[in-house]
Amino acid sequence: MSEADVAVVGAGLAGLVAARELRAAGASVAVLEARDRVGGRTLNEPLGDGQVVEVGGQWLGPTQDRIAALAREVGVDTFSTHVTGARLIEFDGRLRRYTGRIPRIGPAVLADVQQAMLKLDRLARRVPLDAPWEAPRAEHLDSQTLWSWMRRNVYTRGGRALLELATEAVWAAEPAEISLLHILFYIHSAGRFEVLLETEGGAQQDRFVGGSQLVSLRMAEELGDAVELSAPVRRIEHSSDGVLVVADGDEIRARRAIVAIPPPLCGRIAYDPPLPGYRDQLTQRMSQGSVIKCMAVYDAPFWRDEGLSGEATSDAGPAKLTFDNTPPSGSPGVLVGFLEGARARQYGRFTPAQRREAVLKGFARLFGDRAGRPDRFIERAWADEEWSRGCYGCYMPPGGWTQFGQALRTPIGPIHWAGAETATVWSGYMDGAVQSGQRAASEVLSALGSAVVPTG
Amino acid sequence: MSEADVAVVGAGLAGLVAARELRAAGASVAVLEARDRVGGRTLNEPLGDGQVVEVGGQWLGPTQDRIAALAREVGVDTFSTHVTGARLIEFDGRLRRYTGRIPRIGPAVLADVQQAMLKLDRLARRVPLDAPWEAPRAEHLDSQTLWSWMRRNVYTRGGRALLELATEAVWAAEPAEISLLHILFYIHSAGRFEVLLETEGGAQQDRFVGGSQLVSLRMAEELGDAVELSAPVRRIEHSSDGVLVVADGDEIRARRAIVAIPPPLCGRIAYDPPLPGYRDQLTQRMSQGSVIKCMAVYDAPFWRDEGLSGEATSDAGPAKLTFDNTPPSGSPGVLVGFLEGARARQYGRFTPAQRREAVLKGFARLFGDRAGRPDRFIERAWADEEWSRGCYGCYMPPGGWTQFGQALRTPIGPIHWAGAETATVWSGYMDGAVQSGQRAASEVLSALGSAVVPTG
Repeated sequence: MSEADVAVVGAGLAGLVAARELRAAGASVAVLEARDRVGGRTLNEPLGDGQVVEVGGQWLGPTQDRIAALAREVGVDTFSTHVTGARLIEFDGRLRRYTGRIPRIGPAVLADVQQAMLKLDRLARRVPLDAPWEAPRAEHLDSQTLWSWMRRNVYTRGGRALLELATEAVWAAEPAEISLLHILFYIHSAGRFEVLLETEGGAQQDRFVGGSQLVSLRMAEELGDAVELSAPVRRIEHSSDGVLVVADGDEIRARRAIVAIPPPLCGRIAYDPPLPGYRDQLTQRMSQGSVIKCMAVYDAPFWRDEGLSGEATSDAGPAKLTFDNTPPSGSPGVLVGFLEGARARQYGRFTPAQRREAVLKGFARLFGDRAGRPDRFIERAWADEEWSRGCYGCYMPPGGWTQFGQALRTPIGPIHWAGAETATVWSGYMDGAVQSGQRAASEVLSALGSAVVPTG
Repeated sequence: MSEADVAVVGAGLAGLVAARELRAAGASVAVLEARDRVGGRTLNEPLGDGQVVEVGGQWLGPTQDRIAALAREVGVDTFSTHVTGARLIEFDGRLRRYTGRIPRIGPAVLADVQQAMLKLDRLARRVPLDAPWEAPRAEHLDSQTLWSWMRRNVYTRGGRALLELATEAVWAAEPAEISLLHILFYIHSAGRFEVLLETEGGAQQDRFVGGSQLVSLRMAEELGDAVELSAPVRRIEHSSDGVLVVADGDEIRARRAIVAIPPPLCGRIAYDPPLPGYRDQLTQRMSQGSVIKCMAVYDAPFWRDEGLSGEATSDAGPAKLTFDNTPPSGSPGVLVGFLEGARARQYGRFTPAQRREAVLKGFARLFGDRAGRPDRFIERAWADEEWSRGCYGCYMPPGGWTQFGQALRTPIGPIHWAGAETATVWSGYMDGAVQSGQRAASEVLSALGSAVVPTG
């Protein structure tokens, strides 16, 4: 058994940021991580020659100032996502190239999507980020799915198909599954709907040199022995005196705990005494999205020679969204495609060989036969991962925010909550994870008060 | 460590029925129960003189043939819920008595509720009980909440209020939280909507002499040493050879396991190897309803003297539904009231004293001052219970059935699933729990094949 001022559960971005801030303020920390690695839902996959691609979260963009500052602090550079060249859109059986932001599909459909997104943006601005349940008509917004809203506010079949695709891309779930209020909160936490979808000027604008996991790896290096791997936390005993955090192979006695894992996984830890029903039932309702990230590695990004950016949208798929994911050196060439929501559930039950074949067939339809014959195929089904159980993040079903939202961040005795889902800005993103770690650290420091004497 | 042909997780009705059937077929069983008692979401509370009331599930009704047969087999008698006398309805600020089934409120509201319930019944009949995702227009029905459907199909404010109350009563959740397809499946599994609501001729028609938990207690007696209490299962190792079920204080090696606990709690067991994402994500989505059951005990059922049945509906509450829950001897007098859905969440965060005061004030408004001064007040907030985490049962949010329904009963290697939520008839009821135990036992027997030699 060890002792620390604060025990942190989970060595993803949120947990590591919290630990780092606490230590900087003079508190001792112990971080317990279930996996044999840090980084949570960020994970580098080596491509050889020191190059990597990410099988988890990978992008950052404008206004994501927290993750950008953190990357700078730990010496991780960023570079621009490759966007030079034409985009592709496969829609209603036709494949077209286009440049700029406006895909070459019917103007009525485009106008329809545009007005719907503007409407959502306008509604989103009225949702308080720290208390979505206090939005005007919160109950009304939280009582319906995005699907129900789309039935009344999106007028063309094509418009609905495109918005469904956008929803899958951002939330890794279907419009049918998500509370309209959650959609609005999430949009507001990022700024505007379009920002969530875009490369240039949007959430997919930039990438990390060396891979997004490097940020966590660097923080873990700093923290040294304070981070313990392969130590899944099974039980947290708590009282006004503090906590005993029991993991496989170790126990930490601490004055406070920060649990920095996704809400459904929070519910899988045994608490003694058990947590109040109100908090527990929240963790029964926030669900992880479903995504399988697939990458094909080629000797070179051959599509660039043909004037293509590698970015493609397809209603046929199975990967509905594709991007150029080539490392900054320009070689090897990498295409990344996403199976999301219903697709991830359907293809998640295929064999890896069946999935590979289907995804590559889709790539070949978009980028030519050569795309169907990569040197390597990499995939990651995050729902299968015991310590994530889905990606990119959790969403609220109807009724979730208004009935249980107040339980999301409220500490229970000495137990505090962090993780991208608890963020008020860029909820569900790396930037939100950083914010949540900072917020939880600051809650704990203020609770510990003068007992922590800064050493710096 | 012990060995058995089959390890059963959970000694509620489903688990005990499964164990009993397996043993009758000649298989050896070991039942591991987390609590220090059997019966799951049924629980007797002694009133003295050998009399009891139930703080969990308590009623049975017509067509619930499985629980009725089981009760007979284990020698538990039933008696009629007390319905003699007038009912009360408090609605829109007015309190009225009525006899028969038709409350004295506006005929337009009544007709509206009636047409909505008929519409739901008609839709429900087309939902296949073993595969709700194959219903005509399943995606359409599963993409919206009951709230959204009510906005279009219930025309009066009063009608919506009454249907909301009925939804809370049956599902312990709000219309906003539940998939329309789930509502239809659930209605079909019981027969008709009205059957779910009624005492005479409905799901609340009869009670158990000695309390509903007695059925489980009798089965546990039969099973003797095979049932181990205070043994929460933490891990299930599984392979084609069988399972190792690891509980606090004991381990069972068995050829098959039946996990007979609610889906969200299934997700809290660690499986080795981890379960497929598709199954795990189901357990992230089915959520327990929220209910606090409150009982006031008086020297006598004084309301009967005033010609009242004890049954009351109130839109003010806080208990929106009240019944006479007096033991069959006729003394002491007991009123039972339910806080459900939003009320359970709101009042669940009050102190017990605040809750008691509010509930008794409501009782007094309905049944007179004497109702406000009971000898004893009994309450149970099931969301606080670590091994239930809600009641009466779990519901599907939008998208649940169509995206994940097929994972509900499908065994994973040697692991089978039981529990009231997995039933195709009377889903969520004691009768469904019995059916699920029988079905899981039969799956296991057929998997074990000739290896089990009946000894009878």
